[in-house]
Amino acid sequence: MKLKPKYFEDFEVGLNFESEPTLITKEEIIDFASKYDPQSFHLDEEAAKNGPFGQLTSSGFMTLGKSFTQIFKTGVYDGTSMGAWGIDELRWTKPVYPGDLLKTKIEVLEARKSAKNPRRGTTRLKHTVTNQNNEIVMTWISNQMLRTKS
Amino acid sequence: MKLKPKYFEDFEVGLNFESEPTLITKEEIIDFASKYDPQSFHLDEEAAKNGPFGQLTSSGFMTLGKSFTQIFKTGVYDGTSMGAWGIDELRWTKPVYPGDLLKTKIEVLEARKSAKNPRRGTTRLKHTVTNQNNEIVMTWISNQMLRTKS
Repeated sequence: MKLKPKYFEDFEVGLNFESEPTLITKEEIIDFASKYDPQSFHLDEEAAKNGPFGQLTSSGFMTLGKSFTQIFKTGVYDGTSMGAWGIDELRWTKPVYPGDLLKTKIEVLEARKSAKNPRRGTTRLKHTVTNQNNEIVMTWISNQMLRTKS
Repeated sequence: MKLKPKYFEDFEVGLNFESEPTLITKEEIIDFASKYDPQSFHLDEEAAKNGPFGQLTSSGFMTLGKSFTQIFKTGVYDGTSMGAWGIDELRWTKPVYPGDLLKTKIEVLEARKSAKNPRRGTTRLKHTVTNQNNEIVMTWISNQMLRTKS
């Protein structure tokens, strides 16, 4: 489902939409972990059996990047994103395993035009990532800068 | 500089230490962005000239994973990390460019033993990432679970 690019004014408080699902593979989990989160329970199937989750799990940083990319791929940021300045209240609520099918829903919590620069504003976007069993695996709030329409 | 693994009890409030520096390359920025943050200003040098930063910049998610890995490589989590349950107050304060040399300092803000499980506790660790000019490019607080000594 491709959406139209959304400017700051289009992200009205309460607006929500959902991404397409993405499959998480063992190969991607291991590849990501080798560079950005080399803990044994993200990197090595055998070692993970004795780790805190009893099996291989995705790096939470990878789940974060995947969920942003899922929203990006809807098209809402095309030509309108000016980057983000922060994240608040990120919570990893359940482990993500190889074979999980994740999707991300966002909801606009707040929208605030820049006092300094009328050509942009910040939206606070709550991201909720769920797996194939509809369990919430991660939530996070981004402070996303967007161009205004003017 | 390799440090000894630290258990929950070793992360005393106020303790701080620093990672080795890591060079950020253009190739890594583009490779990461292609999978986890495909915004044009992280992905395409030419397009980035017209983007919000005027040049190619690292995905903030990549900077996050790099800074965790820098601390991980000190050895403090070897056999003691039980994963993290969240991040608070992540701020990207300056762009990260190809050729930047980043390092990460952590400071223990709080330490709280689990009420449910005496074999672990959560430490709140403030991460401060700086570049070669000693400018702060990112700060974030992790809620890191660690094994207790018992």
